[in-house]
Amino acid sequence: MQFYVGIDLGGTFIKGGLVSDRGEILKFERVPTRVQDGSAVILSDLDKMIETLVKGLKGKLMGIGIGIPGLVDSKRENVVIAPNLGWKNVEVADALKEKYACPVVLANDANAAGLGEAKFGSGAKYDSSVFLTLGTGVGSAIILNGKLFEGNCSAGGEVGHMIIRAGGNQCACGRCGCYETYASATALIRETKKAMLENRTSKMWEIKSVDNVCGKTPFDYYNTDETAKKVVDEYVENLTIGILNVANILRPQAILLGGGIAKQGKFLTEKVDRLLKQWIYAGELGPEVKILTATLDEAGVIGAASLNM
Amino acid sequence: MQFYVGIDLGGTFIKGGLVSDRGEILKFERVPTRVQDGSAVILSDLDKMIETLVKGLKGKLMGIGIGIPGLVDSKRENVVIAPNLGWKNVEVADALKEKYACPVVLANDANAAGLGEAKFGSGAKYDSSVFLTLGTGVGSAIILNGKLFEGNCSAGGEVGHMIIRAGGNQCACGRCGCYETYASATALIRETKKAMLENRTSKMWEIKSVDNVCGKTPFDYYNTDETAKKVVDEYVENLTIGILNVANILRPQAILLGGGIAKQGKFLTEKVDRLLKQWIYAGELGPEVKILTATLDEAGVIGAASLNM
Repeated sequence: MQFYVGIDLGGTFIKGGLVSDRGEILKFERVPTRVQDGSAVILSDLDKMIETLVKGLKGKLMGIGIGIPGLVDSKRENVVIAPNLGWKNVEVADALKEKYACPVVLANDANAAGLGEAKFGSGAKYDSSVFLTLGTGVGSAIILNGKLFEGNCSAGGEVGHMIIRAGGNQCACGRCGCYETYASATALIRETKKAMLENRTSKMWEIKSVDNVCGKTPFDYYNTDETAKKVVDEYVENLTIGILNVANILRPQAILLGGGIAKQGKFLTEKVDRLLKQWIYAGELGPEVKILTATLDEAGVIGAASLNM
Repeated sequence: MQFYVGIDLGGTFIKGGLVSDRGEILKFERVPTRVQDGSAVILSDLDKMIETLVKGLKGKLMGIGIGIPGLVDSKRENVVIAPNLGWKNVEVADALKEKYACPVVLANDANAAGLGEAKFGSGAKYDSSVFLTLGTGVGSAIILNGKLFEGNCSAGGEVGHMIIRAGGNQCACGRCGCYETYASATALIRETKKAMLENRTSKMWEIKSVDNVCGKTPFDYYNTDETAKKVVDEYVENLTIGILNVANILRPQAILLGGGIAKQGKFLTEKVDRLLKQWIYAGELGPEVKILTATLDEAGVIGAASLNM
């Protein structure tokens, strides 16, 4: 058995695992990310976590992989920008490389998670897959020939910032109409609240306040409330437009959905699949693109570890 | 020197060249495509053309490449669908392979042309590029690590059928809002005619009739007519939205524009570049995506030949 460390460095928690070459988490650690204390403190916490993970390790550590919420140039082992951490050009790899005498690879966190899913999760059967996390935004990872595809200087793979409705919803990135303003959990919650406020008789009011809306709400009421059904159907349509674009451009074998919304499972994927089959270029003459949900509990940690596999 | 045959099998002409390993056309042939006479006649014309091209060849023929206007599964050496030729599941490669005792590779025509540009044209300096032909539709080719990327069963690379304005213009593919309904020469001509009919005082009426509008018209009047300027500016904005999406997803080193509209050269690319720099994800922190025009006269023929290089 070979051993790897995978770190998922999030804006809220640092999670880390000692991971086997079969993608099993042998040891797991989690600490809050002390963003307000600056990069040196975070790097020190991260170092301590790795120390704990490799303590007593019977075997060679093959590599450390770190997923970071930002634009990472994995060749230069540098974080170009990570707004949630307040980082700009923080050197992460050098000290760790020397101390642990192994390769240290950085990647964008969604890229790492997507690689984890592609290697050990629902994408394991496929050579090419695209992973989409439906969360605060829409994170994404492109896997081609079993490898992470990151584009020039690792700046590609930003499917969430593909414009699907030019002139549409304002995105945090500055543009209007980006996919993530329609397909993220944030977007679904925003539309659910809006629909509730416009329809005071909606059954969704059973949850009392729009403050209680979460990504599950409209799905919970899908079969009993027209307003909820409309919100979900429109969300699925927008979600599928982006999936269609990815399918027409990259034609992967599978598209894997992760994040909170993907917990809806087949209820969601079957709806997406039905629309995609209608819309996809060349219809049934082309190869199918499977729509699946992600299956790993800690894709970020396993994926970060797999950056060195 | 090594010798290759490249064929650009279009809906109007079959063009073919004997091409050197440096991308030079040593011999060139062109005949009308007799679409109405069926696939057997076209295949026979194609065979005769290859005979002419290799006649007296001093050296071994390394391979034959054929660009086809349709969905081609290059692994199965089969044309899946080519509406302009009326072809469905026509076997193209087997007979040629046997007769000329060399590999025969098929590809979508835009893919072949893009590969030609990437190897011997304006993309030659770059490992990764995306080629967009702005013609009747928007054809495209994705080159990654110097190789044509076609997606599963060669069904990817359909950038023209990425939706950029959901619910927008009707596309021939059945969907609404596809990129090619905004960025093709057809789209520019349609919008120019519409603008002329709505503005009877436009200087563009110097061409007498909307029937005389071509992709050049609004560019010719850009500096002297507000209506023409507006048409071009809107066209450039839509063109750039699709380019932005490609850049954010694939982050190639360069995007190469071909087809009639690309003859506007720097006038066009500088406008696109300016918008792209404003819009691209991570702004100037990420690597630049160069916007260039295609430079090869017969990219389709040279590219088809290069399928075997």
